[in-house]
Amino acid sequence: MKCKRCRRAEAAVELPSHHSAFCPDCFFVFFRRQVTEGIRKLRLLAPEDRVLVCVSGGKDSLVLWDVLIDEGYETEGLYIDLGIDGYSDRSKEKVLAYAASRGKTPIVVELAKEGIPIPEAARCVRMQECSICGTVKRYFFNRVAAEGKFTVVATGHNLDDETARLLGNLLHWQRDHLARQHPLLPEADGGLVRKVKPLWRVSEIETAAYGFLKGIDYVTEECPMSEDATSLVYKEALSRIEDRMPGTRIVFYQGFLDPSNPLRKGPEAAAAADGNMAREDAPAAGAMRAAEGDGEGGAGPPQVCVECGAPTYTETCSFCRLKERVRKARSLRVARVSR
Amino acid sequence: MKCKRCRRAEAAVELPSHHSAFCPDCFFVFFRRQVTEGIRKLRLLAPEDRVLVCVSGGKDSLVLWDVLIDEGYETEGLYIDLGIDGYSDRSKEKVLAYAASRGKTPIVVELAKEGIPIPEAARCVRMQECSICGTVKRYFFNRVAAEGKFTVVATGHNLDDETARLLGNLLHWQRDHLARQHPLLPEADGGLVRKVKPLWRVSEIETAAYGFLKGIDYVTEECPMSEDATSLVYKEALSRIEDRMPGTRIVFYQGFLDPSNPLRKGPEAAAAADGNMAREDAPAAGAMRAAEGDGEGGAGPPQVCVECGAPTYTETCSFCRLKERVRKARSLRVARVSR
Repeated sequence: MKCKRCRRAEAAVELPSHHSAFCPDCFFVFFRRQVTEGIRKLRLLAPEDRVLVCVSGGKDSLVLWDVLIDEGYETEGLYIDLGIDGYSDRSKEKVLAYAASRGKTPIVVELAKEGIPIPEAARCVRMQECSICGTVKRYFFNRVAAEGKFTVVATGHNLDDETARLLGNLLHWQRDHLARQHPLLPEADGGLVRKVKPLWRVSEIETAAYGFLKGIDYVTEECPMSEDATSLVYKEALSRIEDRMPGTRIVFYQGFLDPSNPLRKGPEAAAAADGNMAREDAPAAGAMRAAEGDGEGGAGPPQVCVECGAPTYTETCSFCRLKERVRKARSLRVARVSR
Repeated sequence: MKCKRCRRAEAAVELPSHHSAFCPDCFFVFFRRQVTEGIRKLRLLAPEDRVLVCVSGGKDSLVLWDVLIDEGYETEGLYIDLGIDGYSDRSKEKVLAYAASRGKTPIVVELAKEGIPIPEAARCVRMQECSICGTVKRYFFNRVAAEGKFTVVATGHNLDDETARLLGNLLHWQRDHLARQHPLLPEADGGLVRKVKPLWRVSEIETAAYGFLKGIDYVTEECPMSEDATSLVYKEALSRIEDRMPGTRIVFYQGFLDPSNPLRKGPEAAAAADGNMAREDAPAAGAMRAAEGDGEGGAGPPQVCVECGAPTYTETCSFCRLKERVRKARSLRVARVSR
């Protein structure tokens, strides 16, 4: 099959959802255009932004970094070493190698040094690994960004990730999660840095193809702790629908993001609407970020954690509380062993 | 495994979504309670109702008729012979046999005699069979009910049917369809009889088990025209999720039906809310039925079809227009053959 864009080279990537097929060079153009369109449509980034790109060593985040560098954004990479045997080392290697190839040195946070490696933390506090990991990552994304004077944090979530999350939120009608799900979480009072997902328009297959054809070396294994993640069940269900009806995912997500969608209205937007000040075309910053700095959310601007100074709605932020629980569980164990 | 209700008999039906397993007798109690609860919660039926039960010969509609008879409702069955070779004959046989076993004679409408058998009609007007079938069935359900002074039409749609439809509507954000999807479509001006789906709380597997254990003989084959129906794709996707997370379907559907769900508000409810007359706990009759009597919907009460007197928003109802198109296509063909 010939490339549908240049009509000369042999097609290397077939995309039924776009009724198209591209040779490598034309696919790069197509892919970058999808990403930049996604950035432009939702005003995720401005040319003057300093972007902190959160890189895990997987395809999505490395591809995101690659595109943002190529598009001329000022970026630095942040790698969080989760402390997962083997997997974390292999991931870090890929991040360092990619960064070196672009003349960069990523910022590295080692959770073992921070006293909260994921596997041990999960054992200590008897929580799901994915849940702890989410809290810890959110915390460091924001802290490193704030300390380093970055204007925005970018993560590599793609269309498959976002639609799987959306489906899960809809199946259980998690209205507060639905009101907050968006590729743009605006900056908010209390030190919450803007967070964006520039890959929201591109699918996992497209990202993988881009990474492969660009020769980006990434970890292909899934995180060994995420095997039972329910998001994989939703992803698979949507994949089957997409296979039969190409294009369903993007229609699903774009329809959800439509400002006229009543589910898009968070508590703050609803309150503003009462006072005739609805901001229908923009997410309501405070409401959308309520649960970000910390799990509980609440009205008004967040306060400052008494331990670490991070934005929170409780006296101590959820990260510091988690860390304290891990510390206590550890000292208990040490006490037991030494008895 | 023992029955979890009587704890004596051997369990015959295991229901992970209810964390339960029942012997046949206890399952009958459970199943009937699910149906009657579904009727009570949404006030689908009143004891004095005259119910027209639409029976296709499949498990769902025959089981529905069975439960409604057992629960003491005054019912008659309506069978629409679609004119599909073989399949329609086999279906009709099952309906007649079941009806006879309960001392009933169903009302039968033969589409061949009405000049609009589905396969020929689909060929003539080049429309999808399922789409034509929907229009024709809706028409006769309402006409037979109105002529026979029935107060309500009941169909056998189960939880799997309803959630598949809901998922499809959500994936494409069909807001008008979403506002109208409900197990209760209230009676509306212009002769639209109330329509209800009393099996909305029970799954396909539960209905099949009830039919099997009750010894109801039903057609097991799917309609040969529905093979490519997209609803089957959605059903399969939800089945996979349900297998991994039992109970997801009922949570999904009940959360959708929640009166506080912003998607539940149809155009009329929204208009009423503007005038401080929101009826949040009841579907808005006119708005919900707008597209029922006829495909176009519209504001205000429907008019009367100049051909047949059915409720419609256009001069001629969609059924009469369809019939006319089939008639014309036929006479063209006859003219061609005789030339």
